[in-house]
Amino acid sequence: MAMTESVHIGCLQTRLDGSTEDNLERIETGMQEAARQDIQLLVLPELHQGPYFCQNEDASVFDRAEPIPGPTTEHLGRLAQRHGLVLVASLFERRMEGIFHNTAVVFDRDGQIAGLYRKMHIPDDPGYYEKFYFSPGDQDGFQPIDTSVGRLGVLICWDQWFPEAARLMALAGAEILVYPTAIGWDIKDAASEQARQLEAWQTVQRGHAVANHLPLICCNRTGWEAHPREQGNGSQFWGHSFICDAQGAWLARTDEQTEGLLSAQWDRTLTRDLRRIWPFFRDRRIDAYQGLTTRSQK
Amino acid sequence: MAMTESVHIGCLQTRLDGSTEDNLERIETGMQEAARQDIQLLVLPELHQGPYFCQNEDASVFDRAEPIPGPTTEHLGRLAQRHGLVLVASLFERRMEGIFHNTAVVFDRDGQIAGLYRKMHIPDDPGYYEKFYFSPGDQDGFQPIDTSVGRLGVLICWDQWFPEAARLMALAGAEILVYPTAIGWDIKDAASEQARQLEAWQTVQRGHAVANHLPLICCNRTGWEAHPREQGNGSQFWGHSFICDAQGAWLARTDEQTEGLLSAQWDRTLTRDLRRIWPFFRDRRIDAYQGLTTRSQK
Repeated sequence: MAMTESVHIGCLQTRLDGSTEDNLERIETGMQEAARQDIQLLVLPELHQGPYFCQNEDASVFDRAEPIPGPTTEHLGRLAQRHGLVLVASLFERRMEGIFHNTAVVFDRDGQIAGLYRKMHIPDDPGYYEKFYFSPGDQDGFQPIDTSVGRLGVLICWDQWFPEAARLMALAGAEILVYPTAIGWDIKDAASEQARQLEAWQTVQRGHAVANHLPLICCNRTGWEAHPREQGNGSQFWGHSFICDAQGAWLARTDEQTEGLLSAQWDRTLTRDLRRIWPFFRDRRIDAYQGLTTRSQK
Repeated sequence: MAMTESVHIGCLQTRLDGSTEDNLERIETGMQEAARQDIQLLVLPELHQGPYFCQNEDASVFDRAEPIPGPTTEHLGRLAQRHGLVLVASLFERRMEGIFHNTAVVFDRDGQIAGLYRKMHIPDDPGYYEKFYFSPGDQDGFQPIDTSVGRLGVLICWDQWFPEAARLMALAGAEILVYPTAIGWDIKDAASEQARQLEAWQTVQRGHAVANHLPLICCNRTGWEAHPREQGNGSQFWGHSFICDAQGAWLARTDEQTEGLLSAQWDRTLTRDLRRIWPFFRDRRIDAYQGLTTRSQK
């Protein structure tokens, strides 16, 4: 497949606190605007069909899960085709009763499903009770997805803290790292602690870009979402979606609140050039990495 | 071993372009000052005995290699004991004829050798012909070193680009990551490219701190060193030694040129606290990481 050397890539940072219809309308408006801007690859935030539902554990929420393919993927595929762009969407997948996944679905610009990624690292901490809802992705899950704009290393949110995930995608030939995300602050934390967490999150991802010589696009939610039973503080998503290049340099970034498209040109030649003069992949000590497949050496 | 909760850690950024005697004198002066400042752990730059000798390939340079233990480690051990600090030194080791290593030696404050680390990832690019001089460290090389101030995850320079190395040290119980370093710019590169390289180098290391919840101390050379045969542009070491905490936040940093001590307080409680609320180690997908021990999945 012949690839152009420069690809216009973008993400849609948005509130997603409305009904499914409201959220889909925001996404459709964003896709129209993305097409107008000639964005060729568009990334949406994690679980964009509705409010982030993992603030508590509620078995009735499994009703919201959808098969893939299913009506939603058919709808999103039609939109991808209409606007002629590659779309990274993020759905609550019902694989079978008893097995649900947090799944990214990639549509090519012809509207067909190019591939799925089922979230491999599942968080569980107060307000993010994902282990209740999602089975972890399968053992061979770190597989990039081929599209007409390149081979996408799609990972999801909590995966972004794990260098192993980014590395495995790179080893499998990913050309860009893509992270649909829903991350926020504990509103009881001090502003200084919130700032440290935000910078740690940016830094570890930019570090994956540097270590693997891959550009990276991270699309987060923004806005506050109420607790479903008004028992908690709700979730304050921290926004700050960004795009960096294969040296970790900022290409585009936004703030906590702003809604809308963020975009940049992905220069496909940079990865190749960097890997020739900074040959990290040549020198990996694969004879000495067995410990990485253990829980601990202690 | 009972550890205090806060440890004063530092590094000595310095020129090392003189004779062995000149360089040792700079190091002794630095150690005296470190002791005066009550620094408990002091890190020196990579291969501090002389000028960085890997600018070309010259078999006569093997004469500079030293056995460990040997006269230099005896001397450095006495200094560590005199000043009552844990010292991370960096030597050109002759293990036997035909096997030489780029080796970090850790002395405890009693002057005894606490352990060795033999550089695992060996670079080789124009001006940094290390593969000619150094055998890579052994297969089980990623072992932290126990000292009276804690368990040190000592790595060396090129290792700092590899998330695998930092992770393996963390899995083996390292409490801090330590990188003696000799890295510089190609003086023919544009200032903007030099700035990108420097920031990538800072970012990937701060990323290791974040991903592993470990503080990190990186000690680089500074200054320009001539090519041994005046055939090249020499090496312009970029300084910028730094210390960051277990969230990747800056604790201390310096610029390209400044020589002297850089220090900060290492708060040992931060790693524990972060690991409880950001439980990355709980969620590693060790069943799905086998690919990390392969050269490529392609």
